[in-house]
Amino acid sequence: MIRVGFYQFCPTFGDVRANLHKIAEAIEKIRADILVLPELCITGYLFTSHDEVAELAEPIPGPTTLFLENLTRRKHMWLVLGMAERVEANDRSSLRCYNSAVLIGPDGLKGVYRKAHLFLEEKLYFARGDTPFRVYDLGIARAGMLVCFDHFFPEATRALALQGTQIICHPSNLVLAGKGQQITRVRAMENRIFWVLANRYGTEERNGKKLTYTGASQIIAPDGEILAQAPPNEESLQIIEISPSAADDKHVTAMNDLFQDRRPELYKAP
Amino acid sequence: MIRVGFYQFCPTFGDVRANLHKIAEAIEKIRADILVLPELCITGYLFTSHDEVAELAEPIPGPTTLFLENLTRRKHMWLVLGMAERVEANDRSSLRCYNSAVLIGPDGLKGVYRKAHLFLEEKLYFARGDTPFRVYDLGIARAGMLVCFDHFFPEATRALALQGTQIICHPSNLVLAGKGQQITRVRAMENRIFWVLANRYGTEERNGKKLTYTGASQIIAPDGEILAQAPPNEESLQIIEISPSAADDKHVTAMNDLFQDRRPELYKAP
Repeated sequence: MIRVGFYQFCPTFGDVRANLHKIAEAIEKIRADILVLPELCITGYLFTSHDEVAELAEPIPGPTTLFLENLTRRKHMWLVLGMAERVEANDRSSLRCYNSAVLIGPDGLKGVYRKAHLFLEEKLYFARGDTPFRVYDLGIARAGMLVCFDHFFPEATRALALQGTQIICHPSNLVLAGKGQQITRVRAMENRIFWVLANRYGTEERNGKKLTYTGASQIIAPDGEILAQAPPNEESLQIIEISPSAADDKHVTAMNDLFQDRRPELYKAP
Repeated sequence: MIRVGFYQFCPTFGDVRANLHKIAEAIEKIRADILVLPELCITGYLFTSHDEVAELAEPIPGPTTLFLENLTRRKHMWLVLGMAERVEANDRSSLRCYNSAVLIGPDGLKGVYRKAHLFLEEKLYFARGDTPFRVYDLGIARAGMLVCFDHFFPEATRALALQGTQIICHPSNLVLAGKGQQITRVRAMENRIFWVLANRYGTEERNGKKLTYTGASQIIAPDGEILAQAPPNEESLQIIEISPSAADDKHVTAMNDLFQDRRPELYKAP
């Protein structure tokens, strides 16, 4: 059994120090093997220009991942979180930013995933992800990362699940009320994997734009059962015990293994 | 606008005449463009041997489809239903039966789909489907067929949706309480298509086996809204008006077209 959880909170836009402090404070008081935090939780989400993103995004590795590595090394745990990644270029004009997720563990930075499916105005401020959907063997479990809107596309989860992913770590800032939570439940079911959705809550209002996030972070079992769920509009730090190997059994009935039962020869190429 | 609906009923096992009579009676009293009936609704579902299936299955075209064609020609409507299909062979030993769906319209039999993903003991009594996932242009709409457990596999719906399917016609005998209905809702959302789930209700008990079906047939809009829903345990015939072309717009936000946003280059081959 391992301890997995989410920390649903409300980052302060643009205040990296405050957000890191909040995260560190939460981590200090818990015992967990894997903790998932929301999307873009170091900077806040509601950017209104590419320059703003470039200003607040960081290289990976960089100051934020180094700070968090100190925590995960000392607490001997894994952390998955969403953050704005800046890719340094020779000249400012070719600078690119990604809406990324990072995986940081007891030995430091392990992986970076760049959001493949950008939502709304993210398309104006971030480059489309170019990293493959990849499973990471953490020793205690095999984990994969998706960021928010990625979950809408069944092929993304499927690619991770077919590689042996047991737990999807899903930093999010979901805004379509209720839908995101329904979708992740079905993704868990159809792949028989665990799912840790770490959603933020609260409202951001900047330069005439406004977004309200739906909270309701959840941990789903391979059979679709909701193992933990946060309220929609308040801070919530929840950690539960799961046995990741339960995700290796793809049987939905005694005679139906969901992976064996697939008929790729009948599906069109995606 | 076209009129689509489902007829949720409880077939009598083995009594083809009674089931056809029931269907005919329902059709006589309605006005619909497309009506969907449950899986294996001509024979009942709970077979307990291959011989039983062979006995009750029919060739397509055959007596049942001819009977139903008379109705659809006269009522100028489309019908999708699940039935056991027998494929005649030279010798009895190579006889094959499929858990099929048929599409019958104003001009007669239009298509047959053979269930690709067999559930539980269907594997003992039916051959795995060998028909491709194919969209049919009905003039009034583009429709695709899936049978019950097929919906668990996102690739099947995706294959139909990418070919331009606007409405999935889904004859079912769902037994996993609540899950099937959740899954079809998410399938509609993730492909932005209409979905007509025609589920049966009631309990079958035969030769020491017993199954209870979950009813709750539903019609789902491309945005996931439930447009019509039957109760879990009674007969229900519901018809609503929809505009199939609403399924051609794949935007989930002004900037997100779900098909344009796909990243096939990042998905592994299924």
